[in-house]
Amino acid sequence: MADKKADLYSMKLPEDLKSLSYEQCDDLCRQIRTLLIKTVSKNGGHLASNLGTVELTVALHRVFESPKDKIVWDVGHQAYTHKILTGRVDRFQTLRQEGGISGFCRPDESEHDAFISGHSSNSISAALGLAYGMKLRGDDHHAIAVLGDGAFSGGLSFEGLNNAGKSETNTIVILNYNEMSISRNVGSMAKYLSKMRTKNSYLKTKSAVERMLDVTPVVGKPVKKVVRSSKNAFKNMVLHSTMFEELGFEYIGPLDGHNVEELEEGLKAAKALNKPVFVHVNTVKGKGYGPAEANPGEYHGVGKFEISTGNPDVVSPDSFSSVMGKELCRMGRVNKRICAVTAAMKYGTGLQYFAKAFPERFFDVGIAEEHAVTFCGGLASAGMIPVFAVYSTFLQRSYDQLIHDLAIAGTHAVICVDRAGIVGSDGETHQGIFDMSFLTAVPGIVIYSPSNYEELKLCLHKAVNDVKGIAVVRYPRGRDMSTYGIDGVSTSFVHEKKGSRELMVTYGRLYDNVLEANAILKKNGKACDTLKIVKVFPLSDKIIDIIRSYDRVCFFEESYKDGSLGEKYAAICGNVETHNISGFVSHGEPDALLDELGLSAEKIAMTMAGESSNET
Amino acid sequence: MADKKADLYSMKLPEDLKSLSYEQCDDLCRQIRTLLIKTVSKNGGHLASNLGTVELTVALHRVFESPKDKIVWDVGHQAYTHKILTGRVDRFQTLRQEGGISGFCRPDESEHDAFISGHSSNSISAALGLAYGMKLRGDDHHAIAVLGDGAFSGGLSFEGLNNAGKSETNTIVILNYNEMSISRNVGSMAKYLSKMRTKNSYLKTKSAVERMLDVTPVVGKPVKKVVRSSKNAFKNMVLHSTMFEELGFEYIGPLDGHNVEELEEGLKAAKALNKPVFVHVNTVKGKGYGPAEANPGEYHGVGKFEISTGNPDVVSPDSFSSVMGKELCRMGRVNKRICAVTAAMKYGTGLQYFAKAFPERFFDVGIAEEHAVTFCGGLASAGMIPVFAVYSTFLQRSYDQLIHDLAIAGTHAVICVDRAGIVGSDGETHQGIFDMSFLTAVPGIVIYSPSNYEELKLCLHKAVNDVKGIAVVRYPRGRDMSTYGIDGVSTSFVHEKKGSRELMVTYGRLYDNVLEANAILKKNGKACDTLKIVKVFPLSDKIIDIIRSYDRVCFFEESYKDGSLGEKYAAICGNVETHNISGFVSHGEPDALLDELGLSAEKIAMTMAGESSNET
Repeated sequence: MADKKADLYSMKLPEDLKSLSYEQCDDLCRQIRTLLIKTVSKNGGHLASNLGTVELTVALHRVFESPKDKIVWDVGHQAYTHKILTGRVDRFQTLRQEGGISGFCRPDESEHDAFISGHSSNSISAALGLAYGMKLRGDDHHAIAVLGDGAFSGGLSFEGLNNAGKSETNTIVILNYNEMSISRNVGSMAKYLSKMRTKNSYLKTKSAVERMLDVTPVVGKPVKKVVRSSKNAFKNMVLHSTMFEELGFEYIGPLDGHNVEELEEGLKAAKALNKPVFVHVNTVKGKGYGPAEANPGEYHGVGKFEISTGNPDVVSPDSFSSVMGKELCRMGRVNKRICAVTAAMKYGTGLQYFAKAFPERFFDVGIAEEHAVTFCGGLASAGMIPVFAVYSTFLQRSYDQLIHDLAIAGTHAVICVDRAGIVGSDGETHQGIFDMSFLTAVPGIVIYSPSNYEELKLCLHKAVNDVKGIAVVRYPRGRDMSTYGIDGVSTSFVHEKKGSRELMVTYGRLYDNVLEANAILKKNGKACDTLKIVKVFPLSDKIIDIIRSYDRVCFFEESYKDGSLGEKYAAICGNVETHNISGFVSHGEPDALLDELGLSAEKIAMTMAGESSNET
Repeated sequence: MADKKADLYSMKLPEDLKSLSYEQCDDLCRQIRTLLIKTVSKNGGHLASNLGTVELTVALHRVFESPKDKIVWDVGHQAYTHKILTGRVDRFQTLRQEGGISGFCRPDESEHDAFISGHSSNSISAALGLAYGMKLRGDDHHAIAVLGDGAFSGGLSFEGLNNAGKSETNTIVILNYNEMSISRNVGSMAKYLSKMRTKNSYLKTKSAVERMLDVTPVVGKPVKKVVRSSKNAFKNMVLHSTMFEELGFEYIGPLDGHNVEELEEGLKAAKALNKPVFVHVNTVKGKGYGPAEANPGEYHGVGKFEISTGNPDVVSPDSFSSVMGKELCRMGRVNKRICAVTAAMKYGTGLQYFAKAFPERFFDVGIAEEHAVTFCGGLASAGMIPVFAVYSTFLQRSYDQLIHDLAIAGTHAVICVDRAGIVGSDGETHQGIFDMSFLTAVPGIVIYSPSNYEELKLCLHKAVNDVKGIAVVRYPRGRDMSTYGIDGVSTSFVHEKKGSRELMVTYGRLYDNVLEANAILKKNGKACDTLKIVKVFPLSDKIIDIIRSYDRVCFFEESYKDGSLGEKYAAICGNVETHNISGFVSHGEPDALLDELGLSAEKIAMTMAGESSNET
């Protein structure tokens, strides 16, 4: 195809990539950028990080042979071009829509998605497993982990590096280094990588690679031999000694992440070495996007990006997150012992207000949820009141630390669990449906699940000032949509009696759906009593008495079935039906997903009316 | 006290330490070693690792002022001398005995135990939290993390380093480097530390320190000034650049860990710097213990030590662990896809048989349980059948990886959960009482809980060959004590009917206690029916039917109450009483602990006879 323009929609992908000229590659990259901008501006998703990896992805698929070579994208916010180049160009406009393609990598979506992505920092460990597995089966293809600098703050990445470096495998770790994705606060590794970024060693790499290729122009075994014999010389040509070399890797880079030719040469060298290689690629987030170039400040401003999302994610001032953040800030003015901790989610969790007002009491620890909790244990042991704000799904990483580093000693720390419940378009890797299950399995914990802004503030005060051990306040993504007034506000529970023998029980935002369901039921003359629990754990004797006073009690929860609150009350009271979530929940609009799960107002009303039921 | 011999039992500790001459220190160290050997040989515990830290602990308490300065011992297997020197010399003979002092550090045991220890790699994060907390309260004392090289393979240590290095705090990280504590398999960080160990830079450090002290002989602010002004010179005197310097620390070492004077000088320099400092100390495990010196091979042999325990912990051939290990080895001969993975517990989990037979399919990933599970996901995705053998308490670290990196994709992997249930003298940080709670909160998981060796083997075959997703086989520490014959062996359940209207339900080794309880009840003419569940999860309709056919059903479990199996069946069936564990369990003999928990044969019989009851 040397003479024609490459056409993204008619090419056979990824195979035809290999025969493109560099000029054709550049043109193809432009077509991909157009598609990315068009789709993401419509469907939402991660634009800047994906615009940064267009050339890298093209080069990867030219040098390697996916799916035989396994490309593992960390987090997956950088893998849209990968999706486009591996058979999903026609479906790309369905990105993140219900029934459409996922915003993350999913092996069940494509054989080119070598491993699941969503939570940060798993790519090196997964790639190493793939590399060993292939080796044991006599397959010498490569496993390639591609991760951003943000993912490097996670301990799992280090565990992966520590094991991969000394392995005799074809594991390649590609650092997609983007200076914008790390805020000033995020640790010394960031500083180190930043320092490395500025070293211009690629030219040395390039000449070494050219020398190799001059000797043996055919890519394959002969080149490998050459590389092996000249390994020491090659090594001396690149950076003298990096941390990654100390950990056993060959180091190549930094490469210009927007130059397909340079990337290709570096990746070919990495491939030919047949041992663990660390490839350092410098990319520019938002590359090629007009508005980003016109307003570099907006897109490049340090602190405006969440490192785990890679995109600006400043929460709306009208959201549970920002209400928590502002209230904590108010509390911090009075109580100088309050400290706020985030794992790379300052804006997402609404902590920017506290951070600005009390920088010395604000800690962004990077993507390091384990450290965050243990660090809170240390702060509390020194007399402070740590408040760790974290997404429900990411707190799964801290289960052991909650038990070991807080609960055993009875340490007082507050965990604000944001994005609890269905989160929507991010899909199964991000739904906050497990926190009730694993948090109730931490001895001594107290859990509040407010359903509106006022309750959130009151619960936060209780958690900070009254609880002795671990106090959790959990709340959903997005806005308070409640329509009931202040009568519906409590820090324990709200019991609405209408003389029915049937009771609907819930907590959190689902209370709105339950009230709406009751309005539907009322129209049919079947209104039920309702119970909203705000202090959801430990279980309450008062609530047990209320439950026992009814003939039929139905729990509705945006939580996984095992370990749910309904299960716990059902174990004590014989008259409880549980309606919750029985498995992973795919991506889609929260309201639509709740409806599918039987948790919309209409479905709840149907359940109570006996028209449908999934009682246990 | 310059002229007298120091007497360990009459000194005021730790205050008097500061006035000892080096000669007196050496004599005191001898007294401490005698006490360590005497006590541990009687009570069990960790001898070699504690013998290695005697001088380091003495030097720490001479240079720093505990409890104002906070010393955080990682894992705590190295902290016996610390206990002896901080008011616990008289109680030291009660070490690890019920009601006696703990084998780990516990803030509720002494104000000198700055943070809880037990699970590896938490010390840097905890110390950093303490350092920030003190700083915020205007207290410029130091927080000191002391950790062995084994703990460095844990990602949490890296997360701590990454955050501590750039902090403006008085955080000191002390690496207690002992070449014996790392097996050959445990990663490139180990190799790097080993390389650093051989660099003899202490003399340079020493002269730099001496020069400082010559200028200003009084320790305190003046010295700090000198250090600050000569910081660059000082820095150039020590190792040129280490990984730890790249991460923002000043580096001091390596120091001879058995020379109090050298240690003291190094620690004084670290203290005076008033910024994050990394101190590298070389120690010899078992130092000063005759048998270790007479048989260096036995104590120094690489691979004979568990890095997390620091002591030889070769399980008895007659134990659940070794039965699992031998059976897996047999299976590995036939099925070449089986791989075995351990997180630094090759001997503890009985995997040494597999490791010897199939070294290419055996993976010791170091203390890195998160990586272990994600790595299994990679292996499985490449067509292998990974079997990760891990202690119940340490698997708590992998909760997110089980969900994210295995369960979502429905990946087939086997988790052998060793030390499930009460483990005994290690105490609350190590009891395996949470795995039922958090594992049942992983969608799609299948859990077997065999109660004897034969069942263990059968369940292992089911887990490897039949289950599609995550298959767990959980079993207790120690030996199979069952007395029932092969009639009591199953991979689903065993229902013994004696015509009673009451049913006792259990799983795992507690079945022995239930049968014994029934023998007691029989004597009184009150024998009950019994149900042993082996495939404990997911719940079974057959078991629900059985439960519903009784008037009274009592579950007995060595598991935490929330998320227990009894709770789940009670949520479905109205006639279930649950008898399980309602909080953390301290150290003691397993049988005595089970009795206190109401789970001995006698207590179970009493519960069934209605003489005592803790029904929900």
